Amino acid sequence: MESSIGIVTPQSMHFAEPLPLQNGSTLAGYDLTVETYGELNAARSNAVLVCHALNASHHVAGRYSDDPKTAGWWDNMVGPGKPLDTNRFFVIGVNNLGSCFGSTGPMSLDPTTGKPYGASFPLVTVEDWVNAQARVADAFGIERFAAVMGGSLGGMQAMAWSIMYPERVGHCLVIASTPKLSAQNIAFNEVARSAILSDPDFHGGDYYAHGVVPRRGLRVARMIGHITYLSDEDMAVKFGRSLQRAEALADGAAVERDGYKFSFDVEFEVESYLRYQGDKFAEYFDANTYLLITRALDYFDPARAYGGDLSRALAHTTAKYLVVSFATDWRFAPARSREIVKALLDHRHQVSYAEIDAPHGHDAFLLTDPRYHNLVRAYYDRIATEVGA
Amino acid sequence: MESSIGIVTPQSMHFAEPLPLQNGSTLAGYDLTVETYGELNAARSNAVLVCHALNASHHVAGRYSDDPKTAGWWDNMVGPGKPLDTNRFFVIGVNNLGSCFGSTGPMSLDPTTGKPYGASFPLVTVEDWVNAQARVADAFGIERFAAVMGGSLGGMQAMAWSIMYPERVGHCLVIASTPKLSAQNIAFNEVARSAILSDPDFHGGDYYAHGVVPRRGLRVARMIGHITYLSDEDMAVKFGRSLQRAEALADGAAVERDGYKFSFDVEFEVESYLRYQGDKFAEYFDANTYLLITRALDYFDPARAYGGDLSRALAHTTAKYLVVSFATDWRFAPARSREIVKALLDHRHQVSYAEIDAPHGHDAFLLTDPRYHNLVRAYYDRIATEVGA
Repeated sequence: MESSIGIVTPQSMHFAEPLPLQNGSTLAGYDLTVETYGELNAARSNAVLVCHALNASHHVAGRYSDDPKTAGWWDNMVGPGKPLDTNRFFVIGVNNLGSCFGSTGPMSLDPTTGKPYGASFPLVTVEDWVNAQARVADAFGIERFAAVMGGSLGGMQAMAWSIMYPERVGHCLVIASTPKLSAQNIAFNEVARSAILSDPDFHGGDYYAHGVVPRRGLRVARMIGHITYLSDEDMAVKFGRSLQRAEALADGAAVERDGYKFSFDVEFEVESYLRYQGDKFAEYFDANTYLLITRALDYFDPARAYGGDLSRALAHTTAKYLVVSFATDWRFAPARSREIVKALLDHRHQVSYAEIDAPHGHDAFLLTDPRYHNLVRAYYDRIATEVGA
Repeated sequence: MESSIGIVTPQSMHFAEPLPLQNGSTLAGYDLTVETYGELNAARSNAVLVCHALNASHHVAGRYSDDPKTAGWWDNMVGPGKPLDTNRFFVIGVNNLGSCFGSTGPMSLDPTTGKPYGASFPLVTVEDWVNAQARVADAFGIERFAAVMGGSLGGMQAMAWSIMYPERVGHCLVIASTPKLSAQNIAFNEVARSAILSDPDFHGGDYYAHGVVPRRGLRVARMIGHITYLSDEDMAVKFGRSLQRAEALADGAAVERDGYKFSFDVEFEVESYLRYQGDKFAEYFDANTYLLITRALDYFDPARAYGGDLSRALAHTTAKYLVVSFATDWRFAPARSREIVKALLDHRHQVSYAEIDAPHGHDAFLLTDPRYHNLVRAYYDRIATEVGA
């Protein structure tokens, strides 16, 4: 039976050995914040790495004692009896380098200056993250993961794992992802970055010293992102053209509205939703991290080193794959997942593919469509048998 | 044979009679900038009104003597021998109220204060524009248009004409349009407006007094818009993931690049394209006008007064319709045009519908796909026969 994973505690791991990065520079010592669920078995064969997407973190499942209402970002997927069952698997979440939830990133103090890295933090890539995650695996004594799994940008990391460390990955679960961004994907990222870079409070990335954050730019960036996470159909069902129903009056009362306000204030419910999402995000997310992670997305293109040939990039992989897409995801549409599947089949790699007819757009990978969850559950059952978990 | 319409000259028309607006207020006197092509025949039966979309104007066709390189926005459609043939039709373009190309709008001086209207300019709607355009028709002595035609927001005006002044519209050409915005359409507008409204140079809409314009916000707004005008496929063909090929060096030379720069500067060609479009737009377009016109788009919903029933809204129309959509237009997708067609057919109104399989997304309505242009040409041939043009 499914149950919640309960109270969890993150840990910070320090890595003293310098990390060579794809941009040619080297990161001296760094910290990674990590969370684990379940127990590593004696054979160390039941470990699963869960990679996070743009705005998420190491906090995959469970709750913190000081915030018992907020669960980890994939709590519906990871826990006792859940599709990725922590009664059988040892699950690791790692906050990626450059993120803003404890791991070393632009907000961290640069030991050479004693000031936050800010704009000087290196532009890390998916491949850099994978190398950093491999050291976490080393620290846990995990030679080979039963599975590496992720959705969206997390799926890119899983794919990169299978290419960079083929011998260390048993299964690779790539969900709602793509082998590389399209021009339109890059365009959305570019507009989001432009909003941040042109915010006068950005100060070239060194806003920490000015005691401000580029809140306006971050807010617009997040609003743009949110449009691409939802399907047109889902937005229509959720909000339609409904006017925001009640308007708060000065005395605290509210009045139901019917007609237009003829103003630029919130008029339609979808506006209220986007503004709320934007405001909330600007409260907790670091703008330099947003820039950096969207660029890592842009740059991801494992076929690039193989003359643009994804088949060749995946030729030497040894993992078995599960690739999942969602019919209404227009950010990373099913056709993009099918590119991965095709490239794997070119070399007769073992791959299962499912296209889930869920209405929720890209966000579907975070939701609980039963067909999707049952599929992942069945897939992990098979892995459990293989690895004796 | 097709030829260019040559040098044209806009004219400004003053209207002294106050215009009641949909928001309940009244606009005192106002000016409209207008351009005409061809000759009104003696029967005054050959007039065609061409309505413009967000960023266009009265300058539909031809060139100005002081800028002979730049043609009007629909110059490929309107001219001697062109689909809308100015040898046969008298064509009128009107810059809409609230726009920034000569007609009274937020940049204009409010006669009651002697200062620019700025934020106090009323939020005019599609229906307000149609009422103002009707007075232009009156001034030309045109009782009935052979056709009212427009693409996108211009198509909404054509549709509104057929509903508000059924006896004055012979044919209604609604191209790449929609009976109302979807939640996603509104969401994109809202993000664009948020970028402008939160620009510190916006000053609540009264930036003229501060000698600045909210350039950063306008730039981001236009970049967002541009993504929705192009299809994903078209962007992929135009830009793919190509790196900006050459980088200018300090000495004026250029160097071909192959690898990533690992920075937030322009890296991919699509970024260069968007930045260029954004920068150019911010040079010439007024931010208050952008806000106002996107809101007019949001508010357009002729079915709203009929309990949301578009069929009822169109029941009493008498025009014949040509509705055209483009297969790859995801801003106003073919399904939206089919809603219009269906509502017209509910009342056995005469409507021709074509879905053009062009790759260019929403922008296709401004381009010269031969199937599209031949269709419009044939349609106007029929109109010419009817009205003796």
